[in-house]
Amino acid sequence: MAKLYIVGLGPGKPEGMTLEARAALDASDLLCGYGAYLALLAPLYPDKERFSTPMTQELERCRRALDEARRGRTVALVCSGDAGVYGMASPVLELLPDYGGVEVEIVAGVTAALSGAALLGAPLGHDFCVISLSDLLTPWEVIEKRLRCAAEGDFALALYNPSSRRRADRLQRACDILLGFRAPETPCGFVRNIGREGEETRILPLIALREVEVDMFTTVFVGSSTTRVIGEHLVTPRGYRA
Amino acid sequence: MAKLYIVGLGPGKPEGMTLEARAALDASDLLCGYGAYLALLAPLYPDKERFSTPMTQELERCRRALDEARRGRTVALVCSGDAGVYGMASPVLELLPDYGGVEVEIVAGVTAALSGAALLGAPLGHDFCVISLSDLLTPWEVIEKRLRCAAEGDFALALYNPSSRRRADRLQRACDILLGFRAPETPCGFVRNIGREGEETRILPLIALREVEVDMFTTVFVGSSTTRVIGEHLVTPRGYRA
Repeated sequence: MAKLYIVGLGPGKPEGMTLEARAALDASDLLCGYGAYLALLAPLYPDKERFSTPMTQELERCRRALDEARRGRTVALVCSGDAGVYGMASPVLELLPDYGGVEVEIVAGVTAALSGAALLGAPLGHDFCVISLSDLLTPWEVIEKRLRCAAEGDFALALYNPSSRRRADRLQRACDILLGFRAPETPCGFVRNIGREGEETRILPLIALREVEVDMFTTVFVGSSTTRVIGEHLVTPRGYRA
Repeated sequence: MAKLYIVGLGPGKPEGMTLEARAALDASDLLCGYGAYLALLAPLYPDKERFSTPMTQELERCRRALDEARRGRTVALVCSGDAGVYGMASPVLELLPDYGGVEVEIVAGVTAALSGAALLGAPLGHDFCVISLSDLLTPWEVIEKRLRCAAEGDFALALYNPSSRRRADRLQRACDILLGFRAPETPCGFVRNIGREGEETRILPLIALREVEVDMFTTVFVGSSTTRVIGEHLVTPRGYRA
């Protein structure tokens, strides 16, 4: 049977994976994905065949994975976090009609919004939005509009891809938009290298977040009007005590 | 050491759990949570002590878990999905300042937005919002405003708690708000009993979603303006092909 698993690995550490993800990798003849993620899997599967394409060649990676599955091999295409959140599930499903006979199974994983939130406390304890600040595939005006709408709706926010070489001031511009709706002291936080060496968390007010230099391995959290710092934790109450 | 794990179990099936969640349960002397979730764990841990409180007594459950941890026991408080998304992490962290010496560790899990999306395809492949339609702890006007803002921002949506005995027309009212911003044919979907017996998925247009009877075990997905039905899947492209 021609089978392609699209597997979310969760945060960097192997124990962040689900048992289902582990079983899909076990069952696969071939592992493919971005090189850094395959490197994480190498110690677990030293003898399995692997292939990789560079970060900008996602479509080629998807096509090659589908090609190999069509040849009758069981293939696992891996992503960090969840396969469906800015991951490989969408592009594979867009290509799938050209690959008759290939069965695709998506194995969900813990996306950085969840794994990062768990390290900070519970910043996403009530309604929230997930927004990528990358304008590589999305016009910056769309991103700005979404930030305004999310702020107006008083959502807690998880921001992905808060920086890049091409545009280092993305997070600053996002904070400026949010500051039009939220108090400067709104509790925020960020997490770097979740589940990896150099893991780092910080809680700080929105006005200070504006000045922080982040990298592409950072996930940023912005509180809603109800988010508070309680002890060492960032918490958005669900309302049980209200 | 006084330790309390707050563990997200992921969707209903045991293999949806992370290896980290499993290790936290292994390490615990006492498992606590809502009865239905403890019942799922009983076959895995037949000999571990367990306690439960009814669904409306979440705060009592948190306090008891904290009390037991303060007595020096290792306790796992379990939630379905993720502990931080409408889960027990927030209320425990709100209570924690009264329980000096208790160390809390939150173990993230796969929330229904992710596990449900994986069954439908990739409806959350681009920016998205998660909104609970439960007005038990949130005024309905706040929920309506968030729905309007999410629709205006063209987010894909995952809707939790789309129905209850108290208010059966929640989803219909939500769809009416969304129809003010989105085309009636906007692709949507829902998933029932994720990872459990009776698992069921359906893809349908927004105008038809309005007429569907859902229950509290259903998670609903509403597409953005770019979401499409491709083959049997609901897909929000990230834009790789654009």
